[in-house]
Amino acid sequence: MTSSKDTPLQSLQDLLPKWAHFCLYTEKFITHELNVDLKEKKIVIGVSGGVDSTALLLVLHYLSPRLGCHVIAAHLNHTLRDEADDDARWVQELCASLNIKCLVNSQDIRALAKVMGTGLEEAGRSARYSFFNEVLQSHSAQYIALGHHLDDLSEDVLMRFIRGTGWPGLSGMSGYDPDRNLIRPFLMLPKSTLKAFVTHVGVLWREDATNAESDMTRNRVRNEILPLLLKENPNFRDSVGRLWKIGRIESDYWEKMTQDASDTLSADLLDASHKAARLRLYKACLDRLGPGQALAHTLFNLDEAWQEKRVGAVLQFPGEKTATITASGMVFATTH
Amino acid sequence: MTSSKDTPLQSLQDLLPKWAHFCLYTEKFITHELNVDLKEKKIVIGVSGGVDSTALLLVLHYLSPRLGCHVIAAHLNHTLRDEADDDARWVQELCASLNIKCLVNSQDIRALAKVMGTGLEEAGRSARYSFFNEVLQSHSAQYIALGHHLDDLSEDVLMRFIRGTGWPGLSGMSGYDPDRNLIRPFLMLPKSTLKAFVTHVGVLWREDATNAESDMTRNRVRNEILPLLLKENPNFRDSVGRLWKIGRIESDYWEKMTQDASDTLSADLLDASHKAARLRLYKACLDRLGPGQALAHTLFNLDEAWQEKRVGAVLQFPGEKTATITASGMVFATTH
Repeated sequence: MTSSKDTPLQSLQDLLPKWAHFCLYTEKFITHELNVDLKEKKIVIGVSGGVDSTALLLVLHYLSPRLGCHVIAAHLNHTLRDEADDDARWVQELCASLNIKCLVNSQDIRALAKVMGTGLEEAGRSARYSFFNEVLQSHSAQYIALGHHLDDLSEDVLMRFIRGTGWPGLSGMSGYDPDRNLIRPFLMLPKSTLKAFVTHVGVLWREDATNAESDMTRNRVRNEILPLLLKENPNFRDSVGRLWKIGRIESDYWEKMTQDASDTLSADLLDASHKAARLRLYKACLDRLGPGQALAHTLFNLDEAWQEKRVGAVLQFPGEKTATITASGMVFATTH
Repeated sequence: MTSSKDTPLQSLQDLLPKWAHFCLYTEKFITHELNVDLKEKKIVIGVSGGVDSTALLLVLHYLSPRLGCHVIAAHLNHTLRDEADDDARWVQELCASLNIKCLVNSQDIRALAKVMGTGLEEAGRSARYSFFNEVLQSHSAQYIALGHHLDDLSEDVLMRFIRGTGWPGLSGMSGYDPDRNLIRPFLMLPKSTLKAFVTHVGVLWREDATNAESDMTRNRVRNEILPLLLKENPNFRDSVGRLWKIGRIESDYWEKMTQDASDTLSADLLDASHKAARLRLYKACLDRLGPGQALAHTLFNLDEAWQEKRVGAVLQFPGEKTATITASGMVFATTH
C-alpha cells in the first residue's frame, strides 16, 4: 500500500478503497453512461504527462484486467517548450514502470501552425488527433481515450454559450464520439479529484502543456469569466454536468427520430410532425448531403415556406445544398 | 410629422416608415411568434415610466386600431425613491396625452419586503404582478403586457445558465404565459431600438426604476459578467434570441407530448418511449400533483428503477409526492 515517486501503485488492489471505488465509478461511466463496451478492445490513451491524462492512463491501466481490455499510450511532442523532451521521456518512463506500450512522436507545431494559418492551440490539437488516429490504425485499436474532465467541460459549455450554440450542442463535447472513436471517461469528474488520485498513486505529474495555450478567448474564458460564474454559483460545474447528461439523452432522441431522413421528406411525415421535429428533420437531411452548416434562421425560413405551401420555392444552404418545396413534400439536393 | 416633448405622435400614420415598420414587426411577433390574437381583447400594460414600458405603451397604442384591441395602463408607485411620485404623475400625463386610461396604485415596498422576508426587487415584482392582475380582473381584461426586451432576456438566460437551469428552461422567460395571462412583445428587440423609437415619437422617458435594483447577483450579472460575454461575442444577444426561439418550440413539443400524462404511466407507454420522453413524462406527472420541483438526478434515479424493473420500489419527491414502480407501469401520488 505504500507508494514512491519512482514506482506507482501497480494494480486496483493496491489502492485505498476510496480510490478503487473512484476507478470503478469511471468503469460504470464508460459502460453505462457512454454505453461503450471495452471488453477485448485496444485503447489508445493520449498522454501529455499532465495530471488529467496521467490519471486516465492509471485508471484505465488499473481497470484493464477487469474490463478485459488492452491499453497503449501515445504522446505527441509539440516541440514548443524547453521541457518538451523531458515530458516525452517522463511519459515513456511512467509507461515502462507500468509495463504499458508507449508510442512517442515529435512534430514542429509552430511550423504546422504557420502552414495551417491557425493558432498554436488549433495546430497542436489537429496534430495530436491525427497522431492518435495513426496509432489507432497501425495498432488495430478501437478507441482513443482522452483526459477531458468536468473543468474542461465547464469551459467548453461556457465557450459554446458565448458563441451562441443551439441545443443540444450547447451541452458540450461528447463523451463518446463514434465517428472519431473517441471516449472521454472523466467528463463528469473535477480536475481536483484527478489530482488527488494521481497524488495517492504516487506519481508527480508534469505541468500540463495546455496551460501554455495561445487561444486568447479560451484564456479569458478560463481565467476571467468562469471564475466569476463560480463565484455566483460554487456548484456551477455540477450544473454543467447535469446539462450535459440531459443534452446526451436528447441528442440521442433526435438522432433516432431523424435516422431515416434521406433526400426527401414526404408531406405526410411533415404534416404529422411537430415544428420541433420538422426542424430536426430538415437539419438531418441537409447534414446527410455533406459538409456545410445551416444557420438556425434559414431552417426557420424553410419551415415557413413549407407551412405556407410555397410549392416550387427553392431555398439555398451552405455547401451548395438546396431544399425544394414540392406538392408531395420536400426534396434536398446538392447543386455541384 | 413633427413631434414635441409635450405631445407625442398620435398614430401609426404619424411615424416615419421605419418606425411604423417597427410597430408592425411587433404586431407580427405577437400574432405569429407568440400565437396571441389581440382582436377585441383588453390589455393591461405595466408602465413604470422607463423607456421599455413607455415604448410598449406607445406601440400597442399605435397598433390598437389595426389589432382591434383596447389598451389600459397600470402604474405601481413603489414609494422607494424621491422621484416616485413624479414618475406616477408623468405616466398619468403621458396616458392623458394619448387618451389612454391609466390606473395608479401606491405601495410601501420597503415594508412589504420586510413582511415577505425578501429583497426589495422581489417584493416590488410581487406587488407589481399582483396589482396588474387586480386591474386585469377588475377591468375584465385578457392580457397583461410587459416591456421585457432582448437585453433583459440575455440577462435572464445568463442568470439561468449560472444557476444551472435545464432545457428548455435555460432558453429564458416566456413570451406568452397563459397561466398568468402575460405577454412580452419586445423579447426579440434590443433596448437600444426601444430608445430610438421613443425618441422618434417625441417622449422623454423617466429613468427606469429597475436600475435601482437591490439584487446583487443580478447587478453583477448585468454590470460585470454580461459585458465580458458581449466583448467576446458582440452578437451574443442575437444568439440568445435564437436559443429562445428553439426553446419555445421544444418546450411546446414536450408539453404536447406529455399533455395526457396523469397519475399513472403504463408499461406499454414507457417501453415504447425513448429515455428523453420518459424523463419528460415523469416530470409532467409529478408537476400535475402540485407544487414541488423534482431535481434532475432524482428523475434519473426513477428511470433507473424503471429500467431495472424494481417492482414495489417507491421513490420520494419534493411536495410529498411519490412514484411507485408496479408490474404494469408507474403510479404517482401525494402522501398528504
